[in-house]
Amino acid sequence: MNRNPILTLVRLLALAIPALSLARAEDGYRLWLRYDRLTDAALGRVVLATPAGTDSPTIAAARDELAAGLGGLLGSTTPVTLEPTAADAALGDEGYRLTAATRGGQPAVVIAANHDVGVLYGAFALLRRIQTGGSLDGLNLASVPRIQRRLLNHWDNLDRTIERGYAGFSLWEWFVLPDYLDPRYRDYARACASLGLNGTVLTNVNADVLVLTAPWLRKVAALADVFRPYGIRVYLSARFSAPIEVGGLKTADPLDPAVARWWKDKADEIYALIPDFGGFLVKANSEGQPGPQDYGRSHADGANVLADAVAPHGGIVMWRAFVYDQHIPSDRAKQAYDEFKPLDGKFRPNVMVQIKNGPIDFQPREPVHPLFGALPHTPEVLELQITQEYLGQGTDLAFLAPLYKECLDTDTFAAGPARGELVESGSTVARIVDGSLQHQGLTAIAGVANTGDDRDWCGHPLAAANWYAFGRLAWDHDLTSEQIADEWTRMTFGNDPRVVAPVTAMLLASREAVVDYMTPLGLHHLMATGHHYGPGAWVDNLRPDWNPVYYHRADAAGLGFDRTATGSNAVAQYAAPLAARYADLSTCPENLLLWFHHVPWDYRMHSGRTLWDELCLHYQHGVDAVRGWETTWVTLKGRIDDERWSHVAALLRIQERDARHWRDACLLYFQTFSHRPLPAGVEPPAHSLEYYEQVHLVRMPGNPGKD
Amino acid sequence: MNRNPILTLVRLLALAIPALSLARAEDGYRLWLRYDRLTDAALGRVVLATPAGTDSPTIAAARDELAAGLGGLLGSTTPVTLEPTAADAALGDEGYRLTAATRGGQPAVVIAANHDVGVLYGAFALLRRIQTGGSLDGLNLASVPRIQRRLLNHWDNLDRTIERGYAGFSLWEWFVLPDYLDPRYRDYARACASLGLNGTVLTNVNADVLVLTAPWLRKVAALADVFRPYGIRVYLSARFSAPIEVGGLKTADPLDPAVARWWKDKADEIYALIPDFGGFLVKANSEGQPGPQDYGRSHADGANVLADAVAPHGGIVMWRAFVYDQHIPSDRAKQAYDEFKPLDGKFRPNVMVQIKNGPIDFQPREPVHPLFGALPHTPEVLELQITQEYLGQGTDLAFLAPLYKECLDTDTFAAGPARGELVESGSTVARIVDGSLQHQGLTAIAGVANTGDDRDWCGHPLAAANWYAFGRLAWDHDLTSEQIADEWTRMTFGNDPRVVAPVTAMLLASREAVVDYMTPLGLHHLMATGHHYGPGAWVDNLRPDWNPVYYHRADAAGLGFDRTATGSNAVAQYAAPLAARYADLSTCPENLLLWFHHVPWDYRMHSGRTLWDELCLHYQHGVDAVRGWETTWVTLKGRIDDERWSHVAALLRIQERDARHWRDACLLYFQTFSHRPLPAGVEPPAHSLEYYEQVHLVRMPGNPGKD
Repeated sequence: MNRNPILTLVRLLALAIPALSLARAEDGYRLWLRYDRLTDAALGRVVLATPAGTDSPTIAAARDELAAGLGGLLGSTTPVTLEPTAADAALGDEGYRLTAATRGGQPAVVIAANHDVGVLYGAFALLRRIQTGGSLDGLNLASVPRIQRRLLNHWDNLDRTIERGYAGFSLWEWFVLPDYLDPRYRDYARACASLGLNGTVLTNVNADVLVLTAPWLRKVAALADVFRPYGIRVYLSARFSAPIEVGGLKTADPLDPAVARWWKDKADEIYALIPDFGGFLVKANSEGQPGPQDYGRSHADGANVLADAVAPHGGIVMWRAFVYDQHIPSDRAKQAYDEFKPLDGKFRPNVMVQIKNGPIDFQPREPVHPLFGALPHTPEVLELQITQEYLGQGTDLAFLAPLYKECLDTDTFAAGPARGELVESGSTVARIVDGSLQHQGLTAIAGVANTGDDRDWCGHPLAAANWYAFGRLAWDHDLTSEQIADEWTRMTFGNDPRVVAPVTAMLLASREAVVDYMTPLGLHHLMATGHHYGPGAWVDNLRPDWNPVYYHRADAAGLGFDRTATGSNAVAQYAAPLAARYADLSTCPENLLLWFHHVPWDYRMHSGRTLWDELCLHYQHGVDAVRGWETTWVTLKGRIDDERWSHVAALLRIQERDARHWRDACLLYFQTFSHRPLPAGVEPPAHSLEYYEQVHLVRMPGNPGKD
Repeated sequence: MNRNPILTLVRLLALAIPALSLARAEDGYRLWLRYDRLTDAALGRVVLATPAGTDSPTIAAARDELAAGLGGLLGSTTPVTLEPTAADAALGDEGYRLTAATRGGQPAVVIAANHDVGVLYGAFALLRRIQTGGSLDGLNLASVPRIQRRLLNHWDNLDRTIERGYAGFSLWEWFVLPDYLDPRYRDYARACASLGLNGTVLTNVNADVLVLTAPWLRKVAALADVFRPYGIRVYLSARFSAPIEVGGLKTADPLDPAVARWWKDKADEIYALIPDFGGFLVKANSEGQPGPQDYGRSHADGANVLADAVAPHGGIVMWRAFVYDQHIPSDRAKQAYDEFKPLDGKFRPNVMVQIKNGPIDFQPREPVHPLFGALPHTPEVLELQITQEYLGQGTDLAFLAPLYKECLDTDTFAAGPARGELVESGSTVARIVDGSLQHQGLTAIAGVANTGDDRDWCGHPLAAANWYAFGRLAWDHDLTSEQIADEWTRMTFGNDPRVVAPVTAMLLASREAVVDYMTPLGLHHLMATGHHYGPGAWVDNLRPDWNPVYYHRADAAGLGFDRTATGSNAVAQYAAPLAARYADLSTCPENLLLWFHHVPWDYRMHSGRTLWDELCLHYQHGVDAVRGWETTWVTLKGRIDDERWSHVAALLRIQERDARHWRDACLLYFQTFSHRPLPAGVEPPAHSLEYYEQVHLVRMPGNPGKD
């Protein structure tokens, strides 16, 4: 059975028909699920095997996908049949196994799973393997997700604007739901399921209470019905004051029995419409949102009242730890830990605390959030951002798999050795989030979506790589950034090595380049006012914890936020070995140096250069990297379709200009403190500091109602 | 040459390959420019003939379109060659002539024009003729536009929301302009040019001053560059207070020399970037917009200062007459006439006054605006609405060619016989707008666009018919609604008579049905608060001239607004014969009865029924019409593609429900005054009046920032 030629698909057969694939318009709509002809090789049969062995809407979805995918890729019809099979405990609820086999003397691939959703995931895995030029010879591949709930969080408003959305209007056409079901909903579900994503929070965490009213719940139910065959459960954000605003109560106090009753009744109403409703995501007492503290109650009190309401139906509550208050005279980075650490053990079992990767807010680089591992009795959801709020938004290339991996792979030492022993302990964020370290029964990961109704879904032709990377890592956090970049590039642009190698190189370098030209060496939160796009390191006229000067603390002596014991002592929130690593200037990773330390301008970096020179060269390097991609991109002209090529070329021009703008604005400003010249190799700024200070970007995408 | 079989394309050849056209996804993107294979017949050659006889970007656009169109429709390559020809005065600047001819013994079609844009229009006309199944036998067809400036008005904001837009975000991707030029811009230009539209006002009349600043003008220039080969000039809305807001002046007083200088400099700056810039559209002293009256100056003073600025460059100013003020204790319908009539003759020659079709605001039915014909020394622009602000917005079918025609064909008697002679005088709105009646040297027509970035451009699959209808009538107002509906349906859905006949019947009946279930017999402005979608006839708590009760004046005696001499005497603003017709209850058209008269509930209508019974039956008829379309639409399943079929089917369900809602809410409310039972044939309401009164629609499309 091995080496059966009919099952062998070698890489790069896409080269056989470049003319055809260039001839059709490539508008990006198909994402990575492009099924253009790869080869004439035929696959004898695909067998879908489950213990039930029966058809279902999910099996039908797998059949549809295989028919479209194999038909497109192989140019022939492959029979797909159903068989009963023994249960396989190793595969769990959602895993699958792909095996080369024979049926009736013919070669076949068996997709086995315990449940039909596993078959669907296996079907996508088979297609991915073919699409990326993998061999089916002797195929025997099992895969099981590491995290139970793999969610997109949509910050979509009910008027179809999207907070921090850079790809058009919301996908959800609320006004014509439930009557009209855009065919796009199914394609959204296909794209999610192809990655193994199994849940979607449809609405913004800055929640609109209306979504909890009957007419809107019927709309939500219609979406849930479309997504269900693809294994995707719907969740909603819940506004904490809903019992007042739509319930007519006088209070939303979570300890008030009428409030508890209201939430129970609301949950019952929801589950009557959506039996597999996932649960609620809540942003409370943060940035003006209502919450339990309005009534002198704790986050645990607030989360528990909702948790009790959904518990009888198997629902969960994801309670966000993104809280900060300008009136608390502490380091903003410390506040979430200070508020949530004492609550460990006080949440219901179906409450999860949802924590952003870092303690501030989706900066180009942050250390991991100190809450990871610090709540051993509370399941923790890792919240990553797919949309590029602080990472060049809709115009910059910033492939985020390296950012996600950096967080997931960070050793928190939560179950680690005693203070001072800096051997790795295996207490990675990944093992906390997947529940293996602290034996959590409930596990989840969330990505803030970058989708919109732009034809190509994500606005930037390369931005879909981030949706892809999040989904793949949510399934298996052991995948490397390189593997993911390679897969996505092959599926999106084909297997031509003259395309795959340079595109993956660009992707893999891009996040670090953005860090370099925006906020190198641990700098953070340097944006100008009114958006999170361009630089404004000089801004000091907002509420204190929104001012860039609060974060960089530049002065004549040096640069950076002292978060050691001589400063805010935020380092103390980390487990002792990690705290010690960060607190010591000589062991603190240089890429986080200015996050934790106020460092003299002449401090000697590992390179032997001064901090100032190193800072300048990082900014320059960021610009140089973008220029390098522009040069690379020129070599791809004609090797990928003109439509996507031209779009990326234009966006790279914008990115290069913006990178220079960041470099020049930041260096001119910091130079007013350092009083040092730019080192050799750093280009002189194009304008004066005054010029950059008066740039006022308005009518920005992703900023609905705020100018 | 006649009857040359190679030039004969009979109707309905589309039937030959239905399977193929059903096989591909029909997402509406191609609009009416679908070039699916019609027939195997070949066309020998197409000759493009101008006096210059030379190539140009516009000739290239014509060649591209013919290559795509003839290649698609005929499935073969047709040579397209260029020839010099004598000028033809009859064709003017933009007209064309299509003639059957021979070249080198081969049959050919000659597209002759004096300028290359005429060739482009001729190319589209040839394709339309083939696409709609017309014969090319003995072809000899000349066409010249009746109106010089044929414009779309986009109410698009710089943040990409669209006021009264129901098809997604703005097409203009301001943030990435001028770097990235979406391929869609060219398709927009193709669609406009295919109809003969030659101008576009890119920005909302509620104007954002930023568009007049240098960075935004560079973005505008990039769009102008894309549109130019298609004969389309760009215009901008101008905020009257711009000299203060971006000019730094203390005043925007139009008689202040510094203000005049500022506008001149701004115009020079614009024309340096966009040499063929069309000019400005201004909404001033209306609904909170700044204007010359802020300085005690007249609309003429305001318009003239802008006109002087653009005059050296050949630009024009379109000054909107849509003005009304709650503090003027007059009938809102009278105010524009009262303000503008005294200004006739006081405008610069390059100022046009832009007037909505009716005196209120794009209601389902209005009488013509009394200003038409009343400013004999001032060129008048007719402003029609393509977007369906008060006509069911994004969900209702309402084909507006009959509305446009009703206005264009109305005899204003502006140059008519003496009072009392009711023979038609030929003083139609069409002849006023095309300049022929009052010998205007400058003519224009404007349609408020219904486009957005929805994949199908207009949101509702049948709404593109309104863009089409506006464009075709702007070119030739003698076309009938029937001709236009037939053309659009054939180009959009193919020539199958089992599709064409029912779809055109639906289109042609639709506007009257919407009038019937919303505002029959001259009722108007009955919307609930916060949107212009659902009914709220009872609303009386807004500023007076926004309240429905201001307009319908229902009481125990009857219904309607007395605008005769016993009331507001708005009728007196019309030319005497028309005023007399409207003022007399017996000659006033019944479909405008309640616009002009307060009519007793038991008044006998032409049908012999009482007003009350007639009113009820109109509402019922509107509902019945929509139900009829639902039945019709079922017969089309499988005859048109599933994607568009399903979308329309869903929207018809919404429309039927909303029609019932309008009927029930309005009749229940008016019944509180009439105290009469519903006549036989009218369905009883589904709910109580209180139910309808508490419906509060929010998060509505097309209402950016207003909930």
